[in-house]
Amino acid sequence: MALKLYGAPMSTGTTRVMIALHEKDLDFELVPVDLFAGEQKEPPFLSKNPFGLIPALEDGDLTLFESRAITAYVAEKHNETGTDLIRHRDLKESALVKVWKEVESQQYDPAISPIVYQHVVAPIRGQSPDQAIIDANVEKLGKVLDIYEARLSESKYLSGDFYSLADLHHLPFTYYFMKTPYASLINERPHVKAWWEDISSRPAFKKVAEGMTFGDL
Amino acid sequence: MALKLYGAPMSTGTTRVMIALHEKDLDFELVPVDLFAGEQKEPPFLSKNPFGLIPALEDGDLTLFESRAITAYVAEKHNETGTDLIRHRDLKESALVKVWKEVESQQYDPAISPIVYQHVVAPIRGQSPDQAIIDANVEKLGKVLDIYEARLSESKYLSGDFYSLADLHHLPFTYYFMKTPYASLINERPHVKAWWEDISSRPAFKKVAEGMTFGDL
Ligand SMILES: N[C@@H](CCC(=O)N[C@@H](CS)C(=O)NCC(=O)O)C(=O)O
Ligand SMILES: N[C@@H](CCC(=O)N[C@@H](CS)C(=O)NCC(=O)O)C(=O)O
Repeated sequence: MALKLYGAPMSTGTTRVMIALHEKDLDFELVPVDLFAGEQKEPPFLSKNPFGLIPALEDGDLTLFESRAITAYVAEKHNETGTDLIRHRDLKESALVKVWKEVESQQYDPAISPIVYQHVVAPIRGQSPDQAIIDANVEKLGKVLDIYEARLSESKYLSGDFYSLADLHHLPFTYYFMKTPYASLINERPHVKAWWEDISSRPAFKKVAEGMTFGDL
Repeated sequence: MALKLYGAPMSTGTTRVMIALHEKDLDFELVPVDLFAGEQKEPPFLSKNPFGLIPALEDGDLTLFESRAITAYVAEKHNETGTDLIRHRDLKESALVKVWKEVESQQYDPAISPIVYQHVVAPIRGQSPDQAIIDANVEKLGKVLDIYEARLSESKYLSGDFYSLADLHHLPFTYYFMKTPYASLINERPHVKAWWEDISSRPAFKKVAEGMTFGDL
């Protein structure tokens, strides 16, 4: 039975999972959830994710949510297919994948997502962007990227000389971010820029990026 | 060679790791990092975690940081010792551990940590607590706990009828939170309350909780 992914092609959580599914050469059906109609907060979808957020994945009788849990599940279940995203054969490499996945989730995402939200989502909702929030998070993100710059001068990818979920998880938000006036935060750091160009040119991501149109971006 | 954990016995990240090490019956040495002196932002420690945050773990020549990455590493490396915290023998159970670990990290922690911060840490730093931040997060946490209440009426623990990292990761912040005036958010939800009483009475946690003294709490 094919995998069913409930979500939307411009959503960062949904695309995070889609990229992983493509890296793994897995077939799946994207079942659209209409965020503007609020479908994610209504009963049929709420039984898949009680938090009312996309994405959710159905794999046979198993229903999962939270994008980073889904990518980890897929990478582990299909560890012999496609790109090895978790380096399961090497305890040290897989440990460093865990570390830098957490860095994305605990340090990078909390800084970059409010910038994208204020710059892109707020205007769509008829709110004006809160510049104070943007400024505070631009500063926060800059500090995180200083550490990335040092790290990426030692290894090609965040966890070592191999592409993994730790890099992949950065793709959706950074893709939108690169269309804002703050893209220079990435471009002015040479190792971060080279890393971004590398990971965003992978075929599995390019396929997904085509559908990532959102507001004016 | 014994594991070396760099941290402090009242830190939520450090204790998250200590609880996991005790569940796994592993010996370790706690190497104190003096947060008040700012040791975490200075060179010897910065080479262990460039983000300048405790904890960090040394296991032979491997150095790891981010508490949730460390617990996952320890649980995977020592999956035959002590409590099985990741349910590695069952693909479905281990998938649900992944989902609810992400819920803690993405939904629960962002709501509970500002309440604890404002109520406990701000006064120590000579700042007055920002009641607007507390109120907004009490509301957010209440919504998350409504979903926990429903979930915990179906299974004894978050990921199923077994204790796992998904539950364990909640312990440090919730322990401090239960000493604030907002503890009723847990106590007024019977299944959440029973779950809290269960997980906080495990020997591995009680040993760690003894050292968790912090400000007036
Ligand atoms: N931590 C969650 C975040 C999910 C999330 O925020 N999804 C957004 C779209 S990317 C959503 O469903 N928003 C609709 C809403 O907030 O009602 C994940 O990674 O899956
Ligand atoms: N996401 C990190 C958070 C680490 C963290 O915030 N550590 C705090 C203590 S619990 C710290 O080192 N604070 C000192 C500082 O901010 O300078 C983890 O889970 O390890």
